[in-house]
Amino acid sequence: MKPTALLITQGQLTGNSAKTAHGLIRSSGRFEIAGVIDGERYAGKNARALIGERTGYVPIYANLEQALENSDQKIDYAIVGVAPKGGRLPSEIKVVLRECLQQGISLISGLHEFIGDAPDLVSLARENGQTITDIRRPVERKDLHFWDGSIFRVRATVVAVLGPDTNMGKRTTANMLRETCNSHGIRAEMVFTGQTGWLQDGRYGFVLDTTPNDFVSGELAYWVCKCDEETHPDIIFLEGQSGLRNPSGPCGSELLLSAGAKHVVLLFSPARRYFGDNNPTWGELPAVESEIALIRLYGSEVIALALHTKGCSETEISDYRREYTERTGLPVLLPLQNGMEEILPVISSLIRTRRQELAGRQTT
Amino acid sequence: MKPTALLITQGQLTGNSAKTAHGLIRSSGRFEIAGVIDGERYAGKNARALIGERTGYVPIYANLEQALENSDQKIDYAIVGVAPKGGRLPSEIKVVLRECLQQGISLISGLHEFIGDAPDLVSLARENGQTITDIRRPVERKDLHFWDGSIFRVRATVVAVLGPDTNMGKRTTANMLRETCNSHGIRAEMVFTGQTGWLQDGRYGFVLDTTPNDFVSGELAYWVCKCDEETHPDIIFLEGQSGLRNPSGPCGSELLLSAGAKHVVLLFSPARRYFGDNNPTWGELPAVESEIALIRLYGSEVIALALHTKGCSETEISDYRREYTERTGLPVLLPLQNGMEEILPVISSLIRTRRQELAGRQTT
Repeated sequence: MKPTALLITQGQLTGNSAKTAHGLIRSSGRFEIAGVIDGERYAGKNARALIGERTGYVPIYANLEQALENSDQKIDYAIVGVAPKGGRLPSEIKVVLRECLQQGISLISGLHEFIGDAPDLVSLARENGQTITDIRRPVERKDLHFWDGSIFRVRATVVAVLGPDTNMGKRTTANMLRETCNSHGIRAEMVFTGQTGWLQDGRYGFVLDTTPNDFVSGELAYWVCKCDEETHPDIIFLEGQSGLRNPSGPCGSELLLSAGAKHVVLLFSPARRYFGDNNPTWGELPAVESEIALIRLYGSEVIALALHTKGCSETEISDYRREYTERTGLPVLLPLQNGMEEILPVISSLIRTRRQELAGRQTT
Repeated sequence: MKPTALLITQGQLTGNSAKTAHGLIRSSGRFEIAGVIDGERYAGKNARALIGERTGYVPIYANLEQALENSDQKIDYAIVGVAPKGGRLPSEIKVVLRECLQQGISLISGLHEFIGDAPDLVSLARENGQTITDIRRPVERKDLHFWDGSIFRVRATVVAVLGPDTNMGKRTTANMLRETCNSHGIRAEMVFTGQTGWLQDGRYGFVLDTTPNDFVSGELAYWVCKCDEETHPDIIFLEGQSGLRNPSGPCGSELLLSAGAKHVVLLFSPARRYFGDNNPTWGELPAVESEIALIRLYGSEVIALALHTKGCSETEISDYRREYTERTGLPVLLPLQNGMEEILPVISSLIRTRRQELAGRQTT
């Protein structure tokens, strides 16, 4: 049985900073999500419905007391479900974490500020025999890998899921691609690169942004190689971070070059105009044609677009979809509306080509 | 008076792994370089001449004993002058480091493997009252900076010195650009991004590759902003690392986007064909036109090429220069042969344009 966990969001559940919570509400292979503690506003509602999922039920509670009263299982963990800019622990969340420790619930956090460094939480945990896990605490140097060219031995097709900016649904899209492939007889795996991926499943992957820069390419290659060798998948989906031209911290070329992702599913948010989740001073987001051209200069090809449609009406969504299909000639997916089936012919064709390549390599 | 230092290279002095030594032999604002300990082969020769410098003298010694006999000053530091692939401390260098500690000389290293973690060196240092400094030891998280958009307030012209691969002379070129500008009345500064930069001068900069990935862009912006605010320079040269498409760890887009380098001096090594210092399995180096196009997609312009001419005859050098001038229409510099003067008109024009921009911003 999976351990049970409550997500702590304290009023942030519908904001962009609650990405971790959204991911775990959508899917979690590691934990049984028993509910979300978010305050009065949405108490009693279904968190899955609130974030646009059509099926399933995850209850929202006003506070810990309510959550414990209404849960028929023992709660093992409280997971900090928000990642505010700057990565500090919000004080209103710390209050709930203290209550959790007092109720015998262990803590997990993906924040930059390590909750395991807060003396009051540490001593409370010690008194009650609970654990505090900071997912972003860096891996020890001796356990990190340098890039050494092993990536060229990978047999699976590697597809990076990229987008020009943060908060566009890269992890969710990668997860959905994996699930859709697997339910259609294609052996698909995912290599995650963020803390939510670890929480959701996390057999293969690492937290890219806490990794010393010199080891990022080596860790990417290590996890893709390990996934390939151990599971012999047809295809590996690689979760992207940030965006190739995001000024606050560009990322993506490592996935294309160091992790060997020769193919890309590209998220696009047509209603968003500026980087930094629509911050005009950060500069305009690139046009889709320019992003495809940039990816091509890295030696990789975009095989499909996936539209991030937050803030769009149904008419806008269908207009955007038509426009982007015409502009790029690529399949344009609507993950949350239509799922991922439309990409399957493209993926099957990539896998066939890859098999032929590998067969050719053996006979020559 | 600057502290004195010996460089320890133990037979590696002419190899690519001795980049740190080469940099310090060329110029050092932080230390007085008293000599190089490299073994018998070049003992008695001039290290500056050996690496292609036309003036100045830095003696090469066979061993520590010879160095101490021939130095008229007390030696303060021994600096590990090599950075082998993988970053481990070579055993033949460790032997010399032990001897140094026994002679009352403190140690400095830029290796990935921290020499301050070697119990025998630590206890020797403690016995003799010496210090051990590992430049790559990561900065504490509380002292790191997130990117916050402050970079848009920088007034100086920022020029990144990039190249498609490692070991092409990016740091040396940046240093020479700064010196040439300053000697012609242009107030120029440099922001370094590697450990040798710290050793050479290092008022502004940090060691990029030991920095957790999420803080790289913030640290770049922090140091460029700090340099701009404290010294009010006309121009800042920003040392590049690796190469934009180097599969072993791409780097460069952070400098263009997060550090605001709208201009680039691009190193090129026409005699080199493959990444990884000519490793065919790593793939072919891009054509210069493709690298310029890639930089343009990041919103920046290449203002000059600088040729890395190791392994080329004089005829080849002049042929390559003509070819690259014709292919790109850009000034093509030969840093080690002709110096940097030819770029001065371009730089003066950039600075003039920048002044007009800033004046326009104030009046509107």
